[in-house]
Amino acid sequence: MSFRIITVSREFGSGGHTVAEHVASRLGVPIYDKDLVLRIAKETGFAPQYVEEESEYARSKSVWSYAFAAPGVPGIMGGMTAPDYLWVMQRKVILDLAEKEECVIVGRCADFILRDRTDCLNVFVHASPSFRASRIVELYGESEDPPEKRLADKDAKRRAHYRHFTGGVWGMSDNYQLSLDSGVLGIDRCTDIIVSVARG
Amino acid sequence: MSFRIITVSREFGSGGHTVAEHVASRLGVPIYDKDLVLRIAKETGFAPQYVEEESEYARSKSVWSYAFAAPGVPGIMGGMTAPDYLWVMQRKVILDLAEKEECVIVGRCADFILRDRTDCLNVFVHASPSFRASRIVELYGESEDPPEKRLADKDAKRRAHYRHFTGGVWGMSDNYQLSLDSGVLGIDRCTDIIVSVARG
Repeated sequence: MSFRIITVSREFGSGGHTVAEHVASRLGVPIYDKDLVLRIAKETGFAPQYVEEESEYARSKSVWSYAFAAPGVPGIMGGMTAPDYLWVMQRKVILDLAEKEECVIVGRCADFILRDRTDCLNVFVHASPSFRASRIVELYGESEDPPEKRLADKDAKRRAHYRHFTGGVWGMSDNYQLSLDSGVLGIDRCTDIIVSVARG
Repeated sequence: MSFRIITVSREFGSGGHTVAEHVASRLGVPIYDKDLVLRIAKETGFAPQYVEEESEYARSKSVWSYAFAAPGVPGIMGGMTAPDYLWVMQRKVILDLAEKEECVIVGRCADFILRDRTDCLNVFVHASPSFRASRIVELYGESEDPPEKRLADKDAKRRAHYRHFTGGVWGMSDNYQLSLDSGVLGIDRCTDIIVSVARG
């Protein structure tokens, strides 16, 4: 295919993960999402659940949260904070993966980490808050917080994480070659567009 | 087609205008760009060149420039500043156009003005600064300022104008159903994707 690697960044509740799965299946390449978390966990020694959260979300809405992260253990993390050490190892695992095989990588700032590769197609999948609110209730059920608040919290934490580690604005069109509204276009149409561009 | 109206917002030098022309031609619908300027000029009494500049660009990089705009003539502009009066009339012309006929509308915040229409497909065409710098030199020749500065100035003025009149961030994926990197995908591929989505 024209692009060996496809990164799929996605808003929570947009169906971006499902789009990524369909793209990987249609192209016959592996998808790295949960498996990426496990690889980073193995490489760092952190628990998968810690990696899952910290590799995409700031602890609070503010980037200041990083200033209060636990200090690293000298000799293992070289004095870095745990989130900074995680970032370094996450970057290494993603760069290695991209070097080794054609694949789809979901989230984890892979668009930024692989931005200098011309064989990498960066995709952003997003949808309106109302579409995403309905979808998360359908998929994950109700919770104490209304779905709009859950979305706003997740969005703010992802935005803060992206800003902190990349210096960029999460969701700006310029970060991606393709940005698609899954709420209006639908999962299948988004998949078709990405597969068609990836095949060239 | 599935979408009656297509708005094409574009970064200066991205080739977005050419993409819009090709899309209109393939769909057999009129394109409103220069003609939109003339309609707004006729409606407001402003010179077309004034409309061309003020309908998309802030006068300086700062939104504060609007605070110093010439005050409106009571009875004609109802005490509004000239840029505010232009915005009101620009909005009216675009809403009327969308009501009347299938078409492609280039720029002028039409994505925001028509955001509540479900028959409107909002597209953003962008490209890397290096791609755009080469393209503007090829198309418009060299000038006193280096192309990177010309791009940065235009981008900043469009961003300030969009922020002032819509409250949003120009170029954020969420504003559009499709955002496409014309530098990587190419003019033809961008056209194909938009036409295919527009036809449904």
